[in-house]
Amino acid sequence: MIFCDIGNTKFHFLINDENKEFFLDEQLPKFNEIIYYISVNEKATKKLKKHALKAIDISKLIKLDTKYQGLGSDRMMGCLYSDDAIIVDAGSAITVDIMSKAKHKGGFILPGIESFKKIYPKISKKLEFEFEKQVNLDKIPLQTKDAINYAILQSIIMPIKNVQKNKHIYFTGGDGEYLSKFFDNATFERNLIFESMKGLVNANNSLAKR
Amino acid sequence: MIFCDIGNTKFHFLINDENKEFFLDEQLPKFNEIIYYISVNEKATKKLKKHALKAIDISKLIKLDTKYQGLGSDRMMGCLYSDDAIIVDAGSAITVDIMSKAKHKGGFILPGIESFKKIYPKISKKLEFEFEKQVNLDKIPLQTKDAINYAILQSIIMPIKNVQKNKHIYFTGGDGEYLSKFFDNATFERNLIFESMKGLVNANNSLAKR
Repeated sequence: MIFCDIGNTKFHFLINDENKEFFLDEQLPKFNEIIYYISVNEKATKKLKKHALKAIDISKLIKLDTKYQGLGSDRMMGCLYSDDAIIVDAGSAITVDIMSKAKHKGGFILPGIESFKKIYPKISKKLEFEFEKQVNLDKIPLQTKDAINYAILQSIIMPIKNVQKNKHIYFTGGDGEYLSKFFDNATFERNLIFESMKGLVNANNSLAKR
Repeated sequence: MIFCDIGNTKFHFLINDENKEFFLDEQLPKFNEIIYYISVNEKATKKLKKHALKAIDISKLIKLDTKYQGLGSDRMMGCLYSDDAIIVDAGSAITVDIMSKAKHKGGFILPGIESFKKIYPKISKKLEFEFEKQVNLDKIPLQTKDAINYAILQSIIMPIKNVQKNKHIYFTGGDGEYLSKFFDNATFERNLIFESMKGLVNANNSLAKR
């Protein structure tokens, strides 16, 4: 089976349990199979359809108990992964969603690490620094480079910790593995969205048998 | 006396105890007095000099006990305001500096609210929303507009609260008054930098008598 999660910058594929990614403007191969997909980008969805034998939008199958208005299908899919946890999808944006007793309690949207990095040089050329993955958050910075790296990380980490309480956090997305290491009671699940998609297709037998 | 604090986007003047601001590309009037200034922008400094009878850079007079490498003169000046407090200057960037027993312990640099607002539409057109000053931080957001407003504020507030401990926080800068309201034990001091500049000039009698 082929699954595709279309985000803001990439097509994320799971093809027979193997991950494959393409930037939205990259050439796609032809797929001679049905593709089960979700998407937050209409233009990219059209592109996918041209390259697939058949493409089925499975977002309509999602049943999520939420009062959130306009929740993206990728976030809804992420929420199906657990009845009681925080789901963090750390891509070009970092979405944080709270599940409690099988209900979605709401969430928020932080800028992704890449987006944070791009802000500083626009404020001042003096704030142009490489992001360093090695940051000591227990030490107040003593130079501009560290002052920026520390602030980027704390701006992402602290709002998430603030809602964590005693819940487990599942991280996914390009920066998910890196960010998960700053938390207790957290794991990185690269294929979190795809696992939910698989579960949904299998639960709808008529789809799985096609 | 005329004081000028040249930032990344504006000239901030204190002219006979009255505030006046000009964007860096705006026309400046001619000043027939000495201007005591600090600056983080060389090009704007040259412009000020052309419009002043005499312009004196007082950053060289600052004596601050710090191990921070390359601390901007505006941040140093802010730190002179208190021997034991957090100093937050909320402009195009938000600088946070920690003073303890008359020593500067370090600090960090967050993006300003304006900069945060500009990030989201660049990630996705679906994330294009007006920033709302009225945000309830005790409620997990239930729509995208709130999800962004909440995240922007928490990204700024939480890293500052994390270092506050039992210290007083002095806020200054364009968004200082607004941000100060989210904190206990915090005050807004519009002229914090100018108060420090005045103190420094007065302490150097030879300058004050000119």
